[in-house]
Amino acid sequence: MIQENVKSADRIIIGIDPGTNVMGYGILGIYGKKPEMIAMGVIELSKLGDHYLRLGRIYERISMLVEQYCPDEMAIEAPFFGKNVQSMLKLGRAQGVAMAAALSRQVPITEYEPRKIKMAITGNGAASKEQVCEMLKRILNIPAESILPKLDATDALGAALCHFYESSRPTAAKGPSSWKDFIAKNPDKVKGL
Amino acid sequence: MIQENVKSADRIIIGIDPGTNVMGYGILGIYGKKPEMIAMGVIELSKLGDHYLRLGRIYERISMLVEQYCPDEMAIEAPFFGKNVQSMLKLGRAQGVAMAAALSRQVPITEYEPRKIKMAITGNGAASKEQVCEMLKRILNIPAESILPKLDATDALGAALCHFYESSRPTAAKGPSSWKDFIAKNPDKVKGL
Repeated sequence: MIQENVKSADRIIIGIDPGTNVMGYGILGIYGKKPEMIAMGVIELSKLGDHYLRLGRIYERISMLVEQYCPDEMAIEAPFFGKNVQSMLKLGRAQGVAMAAALSRQVPITEYEPRKIKMAITGNGAASKEQVCEMLKRILNIPAESILPKLDATDALGAALCHFYESSRPTAAKGPSSWKDFIAKNPDKVKGL
Repeated sequence: MIQENVKSADRIIIGIDPGTNVMGYGILGIYGKKPEMIAMGVIELSKLGDHYLRLGRIYERISMLVEQYCPDEMAIEAPFFGKNVQSMLKLGRAQGVAMAAALSRQVPITEYEPRKIKMAITGNGAASKEQVCEMLKRILNIPAESILPKLDATDALGAALCHFYESSRPTAAKGPSSWKDFIAKNPDKVKGL
């Protein structure tokens, strides 16, 4: 695991790239409006032969990360389509135990399709993992030597950064959620107040 | 929830029938060699609109059951095939959070295909849910009024009973696991000891 930045953040997002062989994670800290990498790494599962040992390990490690970094939100890279029902059931289980680690500690979860994450980071929904990695290095000013050989970790960090971008978009773009909200944000557009 | 038998059991098995709309559970106590129902019920999820609320509820309720009944093992009814990848991903997540509740408390899990459970309980792998329910009533001496209208609960109890049968089969039927094991169990068959 690489740990870069442990100073107190205004907001912490944990990104997860769940898999049944390797699970990547990235911890993103938001300082003011600036995102910075706090930590990233992978949970190796392929050496654990038993399916339940793998699921148990995912739960245990994600729980540890949630307790260590106290993230405010979790972002998960979640493909909605897969090769076959068997692999989707296994992927669903891996996602499920990772989600349980967040849900049991009241950490809200948001899912992003791989294409959406690639688009948010590189501007190209079909970008390669290497391209996502390169852009993350530039955006987050990560020293070259800090990038792990495993790209699952950068995918996870990408999910966290995508969530930061999505949740930071101006409310106006999404439309006001209520009249009260609209009036509060646009006092100049309301007459007779 | 129906609770029948809270006296101290030699062994307790929790059976789970995971679903994304209703999750059934059954608690089976083994007294000597006799299985008895301790409790059974369903966790209603369909009223919870949000997917994460449902997953959170499953984790919370299964965790509560594990803490309340301290089961020695968990048996899960797990279909290996489904209609499509979407439904299998959702089912996998529901199974994953239920499994996390057991794994986080070191409760070992065994899966059984619906066909295997039906075969173990009724002798017919294609039996209806109603037939499984009827056989469970007879085998476990459950008073007629105790059976819940929801058959998901009896399916879960069926998974627990199937696990009891499977784990209670004489080791000889499965074959010895090693020569050392064989010699230890069959001293009369070994010459020159």
